[in-house]
Amino acid sequence: MLVNRRTLRIEWGQCDPAGIVFYPQYFIIFDTSTGSLFERTGLSPRAMRKKYGIVGIPVVDVGATFRIPCRFDDEVIIESEVEEWGRTSFTVRHRVLKEGTLVLDGFEKRVWAAPHPERTGAIRAEPVPAEIIASLSDSTGVTTVATKDDDKSNISTK
Amino acid sequence: MLVNRRTLRIEWGQCDPAGIVFYPQYFIIFDTSTGSLFERTGLSPRAMRKKYGIVGIPVVDVGATFRIPCRFDDEVIIESEVEEWGRTSFTVRHRVLKEGTLVLDGFEKRVWAAPHPERTGAIRAEPVPAEIIASLSDSTGVTTVATKDDDKSNISTK
Amino acid sequence: MLVNRRTLRIEWGQCDPAGIVFYPQYFIIFDTSTGSLFERTGLSPRAMRKKYGIVGIPVVDVGATFRIPCRFDDEVIIESEVEEWGRTSFTVRHRVLKEGTLVLDGFEKRVWAAPHPERTGAIRAEPVPAEIIASLSDSTGVTTVATKDDDKSNISTK
Amino acid sequence: MLVNRRTLRIEWGQCDPAGIVFYPQYFIIFDTSTGSLFERTGLSPRAMRKKYGIVGIPVVDVGATFRIPCRFDDEVIIESEVEEWGRTSFTVRHRVLKEGTLVLDGFEKRVWAAPHPERTGAIRAEPVPAEIIASLSDSTGVTTVATKDDDKSNISTK
Repeated sequence: MLVNRRTLRIEWGQCDPAGIVFYPQYFIIFDTSTGSLFERTGLSPRAMRKKYGIVGIPVVDVGATFRIPCRFDDEVIIESEVEEWGRTSFTVRHRVLKEGTLVLDGFEKRVWAAPHPERTGAIRAEPVPAEIIASLSDSTGVTTVATKDDDKSNISTK
Repeated sequence: MLVNRRTLRIEWGQCDPAGIVFYPQYFIIFDTSTGSLFERTGLSPRAMRKKYGIVGIPVVDVGATFRIPCRFDDEVIIESEVEEWGRTSFTVRHRVLKEGTLVLDGFEKRVWAAPHPERTGAIRAEPVPAEIIASLSDSTGVTTVATKDDDKSNISTK
Repeated sequence: MLVNRRTLRIEWGQCDPAGIVFYPQYFIIFDTSTGSLFERTGLSPRAMRKKYGIVGIPVVDVGATFRIPCRFDDEVIIESEVEEWGRTSFTVRHRVLKEGTLVLDGFEKRVWAAPHPERTGAIRAEPVPAEIIASLSDSTGVTTVATKDDDKSNISTK
Repeated sequence: MLVNRRTLRIEWGQCDPAGIVFYPQYFIIFDTSTGSLFERTGLSPRAMRKKYGIVGIPVVDVGATFRIPCRFDDEVIIESEVEEWGRTSFTVRHRVLKEGTLVLDGFEKRVWAAPHPERTGAIRAEPVPAEIIASLSDSTGVTTVATKDDDKSNISTK
């Protein structure tokens, strides 16, 4: 799988009176990290929504295990990759590392969600496009989704 | 003016490593307090948007002065009232009190914003309805905005 | 087990551009709900830290399953109870209900954490006091922890 | 004055149901931007606290004017500089730009706060060190504060 890496510095406002990161903040980091991973397809969030007619990729199940606390000004690396592809859902694994040590890991199970064809405001899970799976399954990161309309194939290789 | 009061307990996640409320949290409290004040018109946020065709009451100017820090588990009272009515805008004054002492105060200047008639996605400031002004100017709180369609007048007195 | 209930209205700032609650916000709600549950022992957070010499009850494992989205201005009830007592840890189950329907549930596994006797800044898990377990295991809510120093027993019944 | 620039992408969780940044989020950005500016002195937050025996630089007065909304995935630049030096306080001006256009600006007035010598837990404003003023007043950014103990002078030039 393609592993996306982000480097962050822990901010003052992310920490609590115990001096450590307030744990819900990690899920904000997870959410943005998944967005960052999906941009590796070559599609911006806006482009992805438009191209496939989805409303987004809402979370249905999440979890995390906290091993070592992080503190203000710590530099951390977040590694994110799809751990498992379902038909209409997928699971992203996130690992947060500090000086090479795993400080926490967690997952987000999300669905590929389009507007429901009959019920206004509701959503319906739809199959994840093969080209998205292909792109995020390629650990080299060279397989992206073509965005040109005249493309015969939907998958391009940089 | 009508003064709306809310009582809150400071939460762990609102505080920073210095053990005091992280100041941006007060603006989240301000935002919700303005919503709470406007419900005193008798209209829910949804009803107000629908009745007047507005997209909301976005903030254009804010400020706050911090006098005394608040800590986890402190009980505070937030007093909110419209301080000044403009034609298409208004200013809400918020005061936060702890054990009767002013710990901070601030303001939000907001506009009465409808969708722009020509530019998609843009907004246009429109006059604040007289009945909204009447309701929130009545310190007794009895003047509310009628929501029944068959109402002759838009202002009712409880 | 003792079930603690809180009623909340979903705030504007808790929702995302899809119009639904941004999921990390639920963990902020969980965190405060656990605090609220533990106050049913009769001890404030401050008193509990002082009485038992703990630094807090940090989270080691969390998870949640999202079933139905919540939107701005929805009224929700959060029900929280200890689901399982370990020796030095415990698991709190949270359920969020909207109009009687379960919209999401989740858990927080937390440890009873005292300062480490040797390593400055580190913590050590210690046994959860029997009187805390007794109090939060009593579904009637009448068993609280006595706070008077002259109390023979540490458990009182209201 | 030294102007510090940060580039950020607006995150999903920073936006509200109107699709624009929830305004308190800008103050979180301000807070981190001030931290980033002060690191240009060559001192980490931790080093600055230790070197000068301060507890931090808490905010006493803030304000912001919002001109153009920012949306999810917008790239913004935050420019921060000290606008005015008081004796024991200073004001940081923040400007947020999108594609070269000012979208909002604001300020934070902060104090140089040391522990109060007599009252436990309280703070006392103290004079801002001349070398901090010198460093952040140098628009070239080359004047930093020496951190070596054996340094004769406290100001170094890279």
